[in-house]
Amino acid sequence: MHKASLILNFTIKLYLCIKYETLNLADYKSEFLDFLNKKIQIKEPKNLYEPIHYILGIGGKRLRPMLTLVSAHFFKGDYKKAFHAALAIEVFHNFTLVHDDIMDEAPIRRGKTTVHKKWDLNRGILSGDAMMLMTNQLMEHYESKKFKDLMVLFNKTALEVCEGQQYDVDFETRNDVSIDEYKTMITYKTAVLVACSLKMGAIIADVEKQDAEFIYNYGLNLGIAFQLQDDYLDTFGDPETFGKQIGGDILENKKTFLYLKLLEVINDDDKKSLLKWFSTDEKSDKKIKEVTVLYTKYNIPTIVKLEIDKYTQLSYKSLQNTTMNNEGKQFFTQLGDDLLHRTV
Amino acid sequence: MHKASLILNFTIKLYLCIKYETLNLADYKSEFLDFLNKKIQIKEPKNLYEPIHYILGIGGKRLRPMLTLVSAHFFKGDYKKAFHAALAIEVFHNFTLVHDDIMDEAPIRRGKTTVHKKWDLNRGILSGDAMMLMTNQLMEHYESKKFKDLMVLFNKTALEVCEGQQYDVDFETRNDVSIDEYKTMITYKTAVLVACSLKMGAIIADVEKQDAEFIYNYGLNLGIAFQLQDDYLDTFGDPETFGKQIGGDILENKKTFLYLKLLEVINDDDKKSLLKWFSTDEKSDKKIKEVTVLYTKYNIPTIVKLEIDKYTQLSYKSLQNTTMNNEGKQFFTQLGDDLLHRTV
Repeated sequence: MHKASLILNFTIKLYLCIKYETLNLADYKSEFLDFLNKKIQIKEPKNLYEPIHYILGIGGKRLRPMLTLVSAHFFKGDYKKAFHAALAIEVFHNFTLVHDDIMDEAPIRRGKTTVHKKWDLNRGILSGDAMMLMTNQLMEHYESKKFKDLMVLFNKTALEVCEGQQYDVDFETRNDVSIDEYKTMITYKTAVLVACSLKMGAIIADVEKQDAEFIYNYGLNLGIAFQLQDDYLDTFGDPETFGKQIGGDILENKKTFLYLKLLEVINDDDKKSLLKWFSTDEKSDKKIKEVTVLYTKYNIPTIVKLEIDKYTQLSYKSLQNTTMNNEGKQFFTQLGDDLLHRTV
Repeated sequence: MHKASLILNFTIKLYLCIKYETLNLADYKSEFLDFLNKKIQIKEPKNLYEPIHYILGIGGKRLRPMLTLVSAHFFKGDYKKAFHAALAIEVFHNFTLVHDDIMDEAPIRRGKTTVHKKWDLNRGILSGDAMMLMTNQLMEHYESKKFKDLMVLFNKTALEVCEGQQYDVDFETRNDVSIDEYKTMITYKTAVLVACSLKMGAIIADVEKQDAEFIYNYGLNLGIAFQLQDDYLDTFGDPETFGKQIGGDILENKKTFLYLKLLEVINDDDKKSLLKWFSTDEKSDKKIKEVTVLYTKYNIPTIVKLEIDKYTQLSYKSLQNTTMNNEGKQFFTQLGDDLLHRTV
């Protein structure tokens, strides 16, 4: 999830530099940050709110809230009306980071100490809990009908995110994960929140139900494509531009899309060799090289690229179905194109 | 919080045996449990939903949901319409138990192994998170206007519960806790959820705003009285009927209302002695005896009884202000009376 976020963040950063006819993303972001700083303050009991202020203050590219604002804008809504929902999504996303970091025993997040390491387990748990309630409270800004529409979407999405996290944990110790199960996991863990961010913008802009579904599916499929792309780049990315060690997933025996797809098509001899590599904790270049050779032998890079392309096309098709104007469609298509052709 | 719950649970148990003209509590409870069993089932991913099914299945007297149903009933509403809100409150309450037990490193809850001990830390955190979202989802049963009214109340209450938990943790290491701060802590940690349970029933019965506030304040003040009573009984309860060791709070150096009140009125010599006792981990009868002597010397039992009485009277006054009929007022007065005069 986190790697895919980094990639998304990188992409949105590019977009901040591009001028659109009716949209100035840099302004949106700066206005959003002002709103965040106004709303997220340390109050009593300080020990509860300090970690919340900290995690929301140490950056991140604010991708999800930006998607909410941009979606509201391109659906002819007032992006300013989307600030509360955008912040709610950002607070929820950061809640997942705080609790996930506890579960993953992660010491570092965005280059800074994680909440449970900077303070302790209890403050990590409790401030995370409070963030989930703050998410609800931010939504109270909207009138009853819209509030309920937003909450129904949010509750479904957030519960899926929890389910995705559980599947991810479960898969670590399972040897019979299917490709479909893997796709469900990445969909729940990453894609649904991206899709939800976009749909919230649409709801706030009072679009017809169909439009809301189309932009949701745009985000969902693009989110899946991101995550598959992430699996691909971890092994086949350009070491010059990838920014981290190529082969990290192989060294960690991660059951990525590449690995699960290979298992489907591999012959018995090669399978023995693959499973042997994936049952050791060895962190060697030899391991990376030999597993990569197997991926290539079975055409996995091509297969995964086709899969990424499939989801990107599904995403575009859904985007085209919206009643959004050309500028909007161009914006969101550009976002997808950039991801599909990126090498970092 | 947990001890007060036990007392409340005991009381509601008594009430289950009493027949009211229009109310059969035993039926309400059995219908509620059927509803719970229908709604709370283990689904995929099993590892997420199994702990939820477990904690909601190992009992507890279902006090809070019963209050919601009874409140709806006595405000001339249909108690059946209150099932979703009642279950939401019960799921939220159980969420607090799961996360609190992690924070307190508690191995046992309701005579059974706690979730994080039966499984692990991660499943405790994640299933708790999911429970908070299930709470939201249960509320979706109500139409927009009511849904928002219930959620606004719930979000405020739930955030206060988190704040109360943080204050409780903070107070353990602070030596300057005031009586007012202590009251805020017990109010947030225990009383607001009791009050919220009652007010939800009122909202579902479509009462006027004032009625909803009156029943809320009835619950709030009664909740505070419960907790003060609990502090009192821990030192001055009848060992024959109290059911656990008298003086437990003293042995644990707990900064209860008794202790904080004593600090306000004690002379310097006695204060030295008190602080000495409260700075050791000694678990002796002598410690209990000497601290109890100090409490008695400074009239703390009388002071705390007056305080309990004050909150109970505030509670009754608020109850009398409701437009509830006599049977309802009698029911809720009886509940308070019983608590005030209880010796267990």
